[in-house]
Amino acid sequence: MNGAESLVRTLHGAGVRVCFANPGTSEMQFVDALDRTGLMRCVLGLFEGVVTGAADGYARMTGVPAVTLLHLAPGLANASANIHNARKAHTPMLNLVGDHATRHLSFDAPLTADVAGAAAPFSDFVRVARSAAKLGLDGAEALACAMGAPGRVATLIAPSDTGWDEGGEVAAPIPPQGPAPIEPRAVEQAAKALLSGEPTLIYVGGKVLEDTALTGLLSGIAAATGAKLMAPTSNRRVERGRGRANVPRLPYPVDLAVDALKEFRHTIFIEAHQPVAFFAYPGKPSLLLPDSCQRINLCDLHEDGAAAVHALADRLGVRAPRVVDVPAPVAPQAGPITVPALGAAFAAALPEGAIVTDEGVTVGRDVFGATAGSPPMSWIAITGGSIGIGLPLGLGAAIACPGRPVVALQADGSAMYTIQALWSQAREGANVTTVILANRGYEILKQELYRVGANPGRGALDMLEIDRPTLDFVSLARGMGVPGKRVEDAAELTRTIAAATQEPGPFLIEAVID
Amino acid sequence: MNGAESLVRTLHGAGVRVCFANPGTSEMQFVDALDRTGLMRCVLGLFEGVVTGAADGYARMTGVPAVTLLHLAPGLANASANIHNARKAHTPMLNLVGDHATRHLSFDAPLTADVAGAAAPFSDFVRVARSAAKLGLDGAEALACAMGAPGRVATLIAPSDTGWDEGGEVAAPIPPQGPAPIEPRAVEQAAKALLSGEPTLIYVGGKVLEDTALTGLLSGIAAATGAKLMAPTSNRRVERGRGRANVPRLPYPVDLAVDALKEFRHTIFIEAHQPVAFFAYPGKPSLLLPDSCQRINLCDLHEDGAAAVHALADRLGVRAPRVVDVPAPVAPQAGPITVPALGAAFAAALPEGAIVTDEGVTVGRDVFGATAGSPPMSWIAITGGSIGIGLPLGLGAAIACPGRPVVALQADGSAMYTIQALWSQAREGANVTTVILANRGYEILKQELYRVGANPGRGALDMLEIDRPTLDFVSLARGMGVPGKRVEDAAELTRTIAAATQEPGPFLIEAVID
Repeated sequence: MNGAESLVRTLHGAGVRVCFANPGTSEMQFVDALDRTGLMRCVLGLFEGVVTGAADGYARMTGVPAVTLLHLAPGLANASANIHNARKAHTPMLNLVGDHATRHLSFDAPLTADVAGAAAPFSDFVRVARSAAKLGLDGAEALACAMGAPGRVATLIAPSDTGWDEGGEVAAPIPPQGPAPIEPRAVEQAAKALLSGEPTLIYVGGKVLEDTALTGLLSGIAAATGAKLMAPTSNRRVERGRGRANVPRLPYPVDLAVDALKEFRHTIFIEAHQPVAFFAYPGKPSLLLPDSCQRINLCDLHEDGAAAVHALADRLGVRAPRVVDVPAPVAPQAGPITVPALGAAFAAALPEGAIVTDEGVTVGRDVFGATAGSPPMSWIAITGGSIGIGLPLGLGAAIACPGRPVVALQADGSAMYTIQALWSQAREGANVTTVILANRGYEILKQELYRVGANPGRGALDMLEIDRPTLDFVSLARGMGVPGKRVEDAAELTRTIAAATQEPGPFLIEAVID
Repeated sequence: MNGAESLVRTLHGAGVRVCFANPGTSEMQFVDALDRTGLMRCVLGLFEGVVTGAADGYARMTGVPAVTLLHLAPGLANASANIHNARKAHTPMLNLVGDHATRHLSFDAPLTADVAGAAAPFSDFVRVARSAAKLGLDGAEALACAMGAPGRVATLIAPSDTGWDEGGEVAAPIPPQGPAPIEPRAVEQAAKALLSGEPTLIYVGGKVLEDTALTGLLSGIAAATGAKLMAPTSNRRVERGRGRANVPRLPYPVDLAVDALKEFRHTIFIEAHQPVAFFAYPGKPSLLLPDSCQRINLCDLHEDGAAAVHALADRLGVRAPRVVDVPAPVAPQAGPITVPALGAAFAAALPEGAIVTDEGVTVGRDVFGATAGSPPMSWIAITGGSIGIGLPLGLGAAIACPGRPVVALQADGSAMYTIQALWSQAREGANVTTVILANRGYEILKQELYRVGANPGRGALDMLEIDRPTLDFVSLARGMGVPGKRVEDAAELTRTIAAATQEPGPFLIEAVID
């Protein structure tokens, strides 16, 4: 057995079922091993950012990584923006990157570059395989690292001779390290703050948001003590919707975030770090909580959030309340697709069990709040701020959950970074309804330009507007085998989203925002 | 004056006239400074690989870098595949990458990552700016490094406070280091080999290929001594065509390359290193020249190629011969677009002064040879093997030479990596005629898979074919504002290329390869 086959068999033995790939020559032995063994579903991306964004979406929904297959340093670089997002989400991710055969590296062939160096800024674990005999074990260790709490990015670099040489050995699965126990003292501190009668925030992220029993208990604690619940602006996955606890997100704009946090005297962190501004601005703070607010780290990212919530609820004698049903959403009237109409359209159209990918950026920001009363759903958002994750995330989520409709809330400028994902959606028959929010500009940057105090002229606006020429997303989708429709009316948008989610395969809606 | 303005003024003072940009929030002060000063033409790319590929094409045609403007580590990563290509071409390149304000870096905001670490594997020079006062000087030094022989990649990282703080100082231009003198002893060695009567190769790359007087002299030396001339497989720019010396390229496939080189007893290198296999394969060599062949380094990459060629010609008493005119190319008959018909169509259609961008990969490989007798042209090719450079390269070349038609020889799979370049071509009215060679597969990888000895099944072929669904490049182009046409006949292809080059603005031809 060669090294490549030993690695494929090792990863399969540890639960890996899907390979998202954009291979090149130096990975042909892995393509061959995947083909011969038939152990994994292989999904081709036409660009590497599609591959890693899809792997992120897949792992967010299954908890188990797919393996990505990437070509040398430039392929890894193309993949890195979405590796960055996965890392910030603490999604477990395993990247397999080919390199030249060891004996070939010193000759500085055209594609030679420092692969390990390119991996380091975006990975928690980097290893260069040294032999076919050890490649299986390298893979098992990389996977265990990726799956250890709270979820990490592991990158394994395999020179092609480690794949094609004989002597590969299948390694046994290595159990990943589970979450660390919390400090009992922190439970006391948190309880004291909650019982103080002073304004207290429970700031909760990570895996807790994926478990409706835990968010239910937290809403019980909040109701019993008068505390408020809040989640970070962007999260790996939130299980939410009608009948589930509603945990609002911290607003993105610095001023709104500072305003939302200014009242608190105590903040209890559960699988979350203290909130910081997305960017620095002249004269604005980096830290968003008041200096005077007491910070209580009940549970760090790598610690046991479930235990923390249960310990706190037990200490306070609280049970989850019956969640009061929000009234069912009301579909928008016919008319232009304004920002409120967009939220109403999503709220009314989302079917039970939808997975919403959120790269809505400015225009889509209010849709989260508007859909609190929609049927139960999973909400997976861009986490690292590196735009171009939405379409791939939808692809990966659809492959993870073939029975569930995926709806992508997708800004137009961001969509263009990884537009190639539509082709893979078509090839895989992925049930993704992509709603492009066509406002024809990097709206967020215009706001940011005003925030640094500029008074932009035509030259600056040309850098921030993408309406010359206007992107025609329906043609782009058609070019990649995805049917689509341009919609300018809010009622039609509702109907079109609802209908597309019921049809198999991908569909793209270009929603022209008023 | 703030730091950002001082940098823009410094670069403009040193000759930089264009900025290719995909900015984000941390670069808004540069957008503002570019806007207020109006000193540079700013060209927006919808993806960072477009930005750096275009900067490469621009600098190949002008010899002076544009500045790129990129957003933090993920933006730099997206840009890196084409930075890699520029570095392997020794194109002078200057990247300006924003980062969080210095005070904000410690807070691990979502977009925080190690920008300098991400730059290092792909740059020859990396600097992190420390203050507004020094930012101008940092820029001048980075530019001088980029423009020093033989051309380098310089990456300047500017935390946003270095841009927005007051106290910026415009720095004077720093003259770049010119080429180093050659060793006179090497001229004697080369002359001795050429006069030995034994089979001798002159292997010439770099700047020499951009100067028809020099390649003319080399063809005179070859004619006088019986030596052969050859260029590396991929080069930054070759000035060629009717009336100019014809320097063939080393073939890409290892077996063909070894065969082309096996006869030589001596090889004289001029601005080139010894040829190595693009990839390693089991049982095949990494070095392509016979071990027994004497290697003579007449002129290293950073040395003075012009001086080397003149010294050798003087030593041998050789002048440039009058180049014998090749017969004008014959247009192909009506019929399917086979590989030979493709070459004939290009040869017959290329107008005087064309700039050909070459990312033809397998299908387009013979077009170079077929066009030796076409009117004088510039030929700029993918150099680092990182596919996805062709469309951006055409954009940059068109902006560098607005009076000349650009024709892109473009493989289909490769085109998808940076397909967003079409939008910038439309916005800028760039006269680029893109010819997509639609063979609907990663043909090169199929060949490579056979080379590693595999017998691919459906799973493997699915990773190497891109015909399910078939990409419709005419729709993709329309989606980005570029008109286009699908062509299946060789005679029509000739007419369509010729007509499109005479029209202003971009045009895309999907040439369905038989």
